[in-house]
Amino acid sequence: MRTSRLEAFSDGVLAIIITIMVLELKVPHEPTLEALRGSATGFLTYLLSFVYIGIYWNNHHHMFHVVEHVDGTVLWANLHLLFWLSLLPFTTGWMGENHFARWPTMLYGANLLACAIAFTVLQASIIRHCGRQGALAQAVASDLKGKISPAIYFAGMACAWFLPAWTGMAFFVLAALIWLVPDRRMERAIRAHEPGQG
Amino acid sequence: MRTSRLEAFSDGVLAIIITIMVLELKVPHEPTLEALRGSATGFLTYLLSFVYIGIYWNNHHHMFHVVEHVDGTVLWANLHLLFWLSLLPFTTGWMGENHFARWPTMLYGANLLACAIAFTVLQASIIRHCGRQGALAQAVASDLKGKISPAIYFAGMACAWFLPAWTGMAFFVLAALIWLVPDRRMERAIRAHEPGQG
Amino acid sequence: MRTSRLEAFSDGVLAIIITIMVLELKVPHEPTLEALRGSATGFLTYLLSFVYIGIYWNNHHHMFHVVEHVDGTVLWANLHLLFWLSLLPFTTGWMGENHFARWPTMLYGANLLACAIAFTVLQASIIRHCGRQGALAQAVASDLKGKISPAIYFAGMACAWFLPAWTGMAFFVLAALIWLVPDRRMERAIRAHEPGQG
Amino acid sequence: MRTSRLEAFSDGVLAIIITIMVLELKVPHEPTLEALRGSATGFLTYLLSFVYIGIYWNNHHHMFHVVEHVDGTVLWANLHLLFWLSLLPFTTGWMGENHFARWPTMLYGANLLACAIAFTVLQASIIRHCGRQGALAQAVASDLKGKISPAIYFAGMACAWFLPAWTGMAFFVLAALIWLVPDRRMERAIRAHEPGQG
Repeated sequence: MRTSRLEAFSDGVLAIIITIMVLELKVPHEPTLEALRGSATGFLTYLLSFVYIGIYWNNHHHMFHVVEHVDGTVLWANLHLLFWLSLLPFTTGWMGENHFARWPTMLYGANLLACAIAFTVLQASIIRHCGRQGALAQAVASDLKGKISPAIYFAGMACAWFLPAWTGMAFFVLAALIWLVPDRRMERAIRAHEPGQG
Repeated sequence: MRTSRLEAFSDGVLAIIITIMVLELKVPHEPTLEALRGSATGFLTYLLSFVYIGIYWNNHHHMFHVVEHVDGTVLWANLHLLFWLSLLPFTTGWMGENHFARWPTMLYGANLLACAIAFTVLQASIIRHCGRQGALAQAVASDLKGKISPAIYFAGMACAWFLPAWTGMAFFVLAALIWLVPDRRMERAIRAHEPGQG
Repeated sequence: MRTSRLEAFSDGVLAIIITIMVLELKVPHEPTLEALRGSATGFLTYLLSFVYIGIYWNNHHHMFHVVEHVDGTVLWANLHLLFWLSLLPFTTGWMGENHFARWPTMLYGANLLACAIAFTVLQASIIRHCGRQGALAQAVASDLKGKISPAIYFAGMACAWFLPAWTGMAFFVLAALIWLVPDRRMERAIRAHEPGQG
Repeated sequence: MRTSRLEAFSDGVLAIIITIMVLELKVPHEPTLEALRGSATGFLTYLLSFVYIGIYWNNHHHMFHVVEHVDGTVLWANLHLLFWLSLLPFTTGWMGENHFARWPTMLYGANLLACAIAFTVLQASIIRHCGRQGALAQAVASDLKGKISPAIYFAGMACAWFLPAWTGMAFFVLAALIWLVPDRRMERAIRAHEPGQG
C-alpha cells in the first residue's frame, strides 16, 4: 500500500482537529471586555493545542517522507495516533472552561502522554515494516525528544496534582517549545535519503 | 470517470465524520472526576464508532485500489454509503448520552446494519461495472465477513431489545473485532493485480 | 491557473458541508422513540440536502472535467457557489426544526434557487473563459435541467406560501429527482473530449 | 520539503474555517420572519468573513504557485497565519451575535490585522528562503495592498471606538473590496515564471 492516501487522510483529520478546536471556544454573549476575559484561558489552551497539532503534523510529515510503503499494522497504528489527537479538542475545552483546574489539567497531560506513546508505537511499527536498516530507523536511533517528552508530561501531571494546576501547564508549554526546535537529525536523514531516490 | 477524485472526496467525508464525532462528547462543566465519569459511556461509544469508521476507510481504500474507472451508479452508491456513515455521529451521540438505553442501542445497530448493506450495494455496483472477471469480483467471491456482519448486527439488536441493552453492544464490539483482522483475501488480490498493471 | 487546486478546495468544502449538516440534527435527550420522532423531519430534510450537495458535487465534477485552466473570475464564481451551498446547513436546520413551517420552507427554496443561479453564473464564466467552441459550451447548449430547476424552485416557494408548506417540499424533492437522472449530454461530451486529450 | 503537502494541508484548514463559520449562525427557534431577522447581522458578518477567507485562499494559492521548496521556518510561518485565520469564526460569531457592538467590532479588526501581519511574515520568510532574486520577491516588491490594509484595519478600529461601531465595519468592507480586485502583478509574475519551469 502506498503512503500517499494515508498521508492525505491524516492531513485531513489533523486539519479538522486543529480547526474544530476553535468551536470549543464559546462565543461570549455579552459584548463587553469582561465577557471576553472569560475566554482568555480558553484562548491560551487553544493556542497550546494548536501548536501541539502543528508539531504532530510536522513530525508526521517528516516521518512518512522517508517511508514508501505501509502495511495494515502501520495503518492502524496511524489511526491509533489520530484517535488520541482527536480527543485534544475535548480535553482542551474542559481545561479551558475550568481555568486550569486540577482534574482537567491532569487529563490534558494524560492526553498528551497518550499521543506521545501512540507516536512512538507508530514509529516502531514503521521501523519493523521497513527494517532496521531503513532511513527512519537510523534517524530516530537516538530519539532524545521522544524519550524526554513523556517524562515531562509525567512531571507536569504530578505538578498539577500536588501544586497549583498552572505549574503543570508550564511543563506542557516547555515540551512544546522543545519540539518547536526543528529536528535536525530527521532533516539530515531526508536529505541523505533524497538522492538515493532520484 | 477516474476514481481519484471519488477517493479524495470520500476520504474527506470520512476524515470529517471521524473527527466531528468528538463534538458530540459534551465537555463537562464541572472540573471534577464525577463530571468526567458522565462522559465515560460517550467516550466508549466514540471509541467504537472511531474504529468502525477506520474499518470502513480501510475497506473502502482496499476496494477502490483494484478499481480504475467508475460510472454514475457507483458514484451514487458511494454517496449512499457516506450518507449512512455520516449518521454515525448522531446515533453515537444519542447512545453515548443515554448510557446504552434500549432504543438508542437499537438505532445504533440499525445504523451499522444500513452501513453494511450500503457497502454491499457499492461492492455489487462496482462488480457490475467492472465485470465478473474483475479483480474485485474474485476477491469478494467468498465474502464471509460481509455475510456474517449483518447477522451479528441483527443479533445485537435483538439482544438490546430483550436483554439489558449493553449485551447488544457486545455484539457490535465483536463485529468490529472481526473486521480488525486484516482481510488477507483482498491483500492477496491486490498483490496479484499489481503486477498486471506494471 | 490549473483547475486541480480549485477542485481540491471545492471538494473539501463540499465534503465538510455534507458532513456538518448532521450536527444540526440535535441529539434528543430522552432515550425514547417519541424523542426520536421529533428528529424525523430533521432527518428527512438532512436526506434531501445531502442529495442536493451530492448532485452539486457530481455536476461540479463533470463541469471541471472538461476545463483545463481557470482565471480569477471563475475562481470567485466558484467561491460564490460555495457560499450559497455553505448556507444549506443553516436553512436545512431551520426547516427541519420547525417541521416545514411556511417561512423556513420559503427560505430553503430561496437557498436552492440562489445555488442554481450561482451554478449558472459559474458555468457562464467558464464558457466565457474557454470560448464558445469549448467542450463545456457545447455540452450545455440545450441545458434543459438548468432552465427548468429555477422554475420548479419558484413553484415550490409559491406553494409553500399559499398552500400547506409541505407541498413546497414536494417540488424541491421533484427537482432533486430530475437531477439524479444522470446527465447523458455531459457524459457524452466528456467521452468526446477524452480522446482529444490522449 | 516540497510545497504540495503544505498547500494541501492549508487548503484543508481554509476549507474547514470557511465552512464551520456557518455553525456560529445560530438556527432561530421560531419559524417567523422576525426570528430570522435576528440572524441578519450574523449573515452579513458571515458573508464578510467568507470573502476574507476566499481572499486569503486566493493569495495563498498565488504565493505558493511561485515557490517550489519550503523549510521549517516557512512551515511555522504558515501555521501562524492559519492560527489567526482559524480565530475568525470566533470573532465573527461574537460580532454577529452582538450586532456590531464596540468591543466585538474592535476584536474583529484586531483579528484581521493579525492575519495581515501573519501573511506579511509568511511572505518575508518565503523570500528569505528563496532569495531576493526569486519570482515572489520581485512580485511583491511594491506590495501596495499589503501596506495599505493594516492602515485601513487600524482606521476601522479607531472608528469602531470613537464612532458608532458600524463605521468600523465600513472600513473592513473597503479593505475586502480592494483585495477582490485581482492582483495583476502576481499574475504577471506567474506567467513570466511558468515558461521558466516548462
